[in-house]
Amino acid sequence: MNDGNRQVVLAARPVGAPKLGDFHLQETRRPEPGTGEMLIRTLWLSLDPYMRGRMNAQKSYAEPIPIGGVIEGGTVSVVEASNHGDYAVGDIIVGRAGWQEWAVSAGTGMRKINPNAGPLSASLGVLGMPGMTAYTGLLNIGQPKAGETVVVAGASGAVGSVVGQIARIKGCRAVGVAGGAEKCTFTTGELGFDACIDHRAPDFANQLGAACPDGIDVYFENVGGPVLEAVFPLMNMWGRMPVCGMISHYNDTAPSPGPNMLPKAMMLILTRRLILRGFIVRDYTSQLDDFLRDVGGWVREGRIRYREDVLDGLDKAPEGLIGLLQGNNFGKLVVKVAEL
Amino acid sequence: MNDGNRQVVLAARPVGAPKLGDFHLQETRRPEPGTGEMLIRTLWLSLDPYMRGRMNAQKSYAEPIPIGGVIEGGTVSVVEASNHGDYAVGDIIVGRAGWQEWAVSAGTGMRKINPNAGPLSASLGVLGMPGMTAYTGLLNIGQPKAGETVVVAGASGAVGSVVGQIARIKGCRAVGVAGGAEKCTFTTGELGFDACIDHRAPDFANQLGAACPDGIDVYFENVGGPVLEAVFPLMNMWGRMPVCGMISHYNDTAPSPGPNMLPKAMMLILTRRLILRGFIVRDYTSQLDDFLRDVGGWVREGRIRYREDVLDGLDKAPEGLIGLLQGNNFGKLVVKVAEL
Repeated sequence: MNDGNRQVVLAARPVGAPKLGDFHLQETRRPEPGTGEMLIRTLWLSLDPYMRGRMNAQKSYAEPIPIGGVIEGGTVSVVEASNHGDYAVGDIIVGRAGWQEWAVSAGTGMRKINPNAGPLSASLGVLGMPGMTAYTGLLNIGQPKAGETVVVAGASGAVGSVVGQIARIKGCRAVGVAGGAEKCTFTTGELGFDACIDHRAPDFANQLGAACPDGIDVYFENVGGPVLEAVFPLMNMWGRMPVCGMISHYNDTAPSPGPNMLPKAMMLILTRRLILRGFIVRDYTSQLDDFLRDVGGWVREGRIRYREDVLDGLDKAPEGLIGLLQGNNFGKLVVKVAEL
Repeated sequence: MNDGNRQVVLAARPVGAPKLGDFHLQETRRPEPGTGEMLIRTLWLSLDPYMRGRMNAQKSYAEPIPIGGVIEGGTVSVVEASNHGDYAVGDIIVGRAGWQEWAVSAGTGMRKINPNAGPLSASLGVLGMPGMTAYTGLLNIGQPKAGETVVVAGASGAVGSVVGQIARIKGCRAVGVAGGAEKCTFTTGELGFDACIDHRAPDFANQLGAACPDGIDVYFENVGGPVLEAVFPLMNMWGRMPVCGMISHYNDTAPSPGPNMLPKAMMLILTRRLILRGFIVRDYTSQLDDFLRDVGGWVREGRIRYREDVLDGLDKAPEGLIGLLQGNNFGKLVVKVAEL
């Protein structure tokens, strides 16, 4: 073990889709923990769509990453040295150490996990931020009732897969949308969705309508674009739309071409008394224990399954994120940074 | 008094803006009340934007008016003959007798009003469906808090005028949008709004921003179009949008030209955690007593004022509705059909 710390920093703000040159892999000195701090070593790094927004100059949810700054990201780490009373060497913690091999932390936003409860990387997916996003958005805003139809895109991915499986557990018809036959087959076969439609199909909107014979009661929105436009006319009276993400627009550099679908959408919100509500997972931080109890239980019982797409090595993170924004991943995308 | 009954019926479904030829004024025989029914004579007829939707073949909130059918509408009527135990000759009732001089009713949807409580026509405006639309939508969905900014279009009209005045009563900054300087002056002068912006001004969006220095917390949506597009970027975190109407689109015959504003709107819903919720007044029927108590009290105290735009004679109703959809009215538009 030398005393270096490899990091990926933001080299330039992407214009449209990020490219490799927008990232820079550098090596700095490993930091030293001060009073009340600990030194942690990254084991797993999570790649998630929201990261694209942080690379822009404008504030979205949070402050942008500065040029030259380490890219933000959720991590599973091991404590290698500790001056912090609550953490001991060898503890496994989940938090936001970013795209780097080593970090110093005062514990803010960190949480210990039980390393024997399952694969460590699950704390970045089904039992982490994406899973909790699915759980809190679906249950608090979507409020699915037995017999209703729930639609979600990215159905084989980190959030969508959990949305659909919780919908099934709640007695709903779960209809997924995914890119390509392989993901659709996985979604209905392995994950147990009632149907999954390939958004690349030329008759996608018709197929979606056929898969939702009783209309759509809950649309968990994480993609935008043509999927959203196909969903809107299928929404039932009193439908709910938790608005969680818009991945198809994160790389937009110009207004979308017409026609302008906003008036039609608003007319449907009006006449069908829809509720649209934006949220992010940290709006529901107080529900962490409920989430871990419920989803943890469902995973143990085999009622919620998940798939990971693993990249090996921190240097793979830039191409991983670029591909994620194009839908190239198959399952929750994580980077294995180091062995425990 | 002869035994005729003048009616305005739907002659043809309008394409785009209704024209006079889409309506037909006819005279039929006055109906006879059967067992449990009463014969009522129309005194006042309300003209409201929602009527446009009923003239289309597609269902919006309710079934369309059939070709040849009497146009629907809220009315104040007097009971002229009664076989109904709850109603006596001379009672004044508000209900939905439609665009005709006489009607037979079994009492469904009718309600007696106190003829000494104020002008009868107020039961079609500030103390009727439009006032209750403003009251229930603003309070249930908008949930205005003291110090917040509430924006509403049609600010001198039946719904908007009540929205802004209730917002003021609740301690909010009320910013109206209206068509033309005269309506704006009335809105700030007579109705006490903090500001009112003319949506016809070329720099409308900039003026709206300047009138909302702390952003917008509640936008009561009844118009759509450029007003909505100017409002969206001004919405504050946790903002609420009761979606009540889209008058600028009711005559649309084709999709609106681009750019497509839906992705941008959804991104703002997401990152600012907005709530959009469609409603119509009958979703809140159970709040009628609260409405009459609160708004009735505020009208008596002079804290809510209103203006009526009165047309004289049933035959004026078609041109009245045509003009209403173009914003030609100034205040709540009512038709005086007959003297008491």
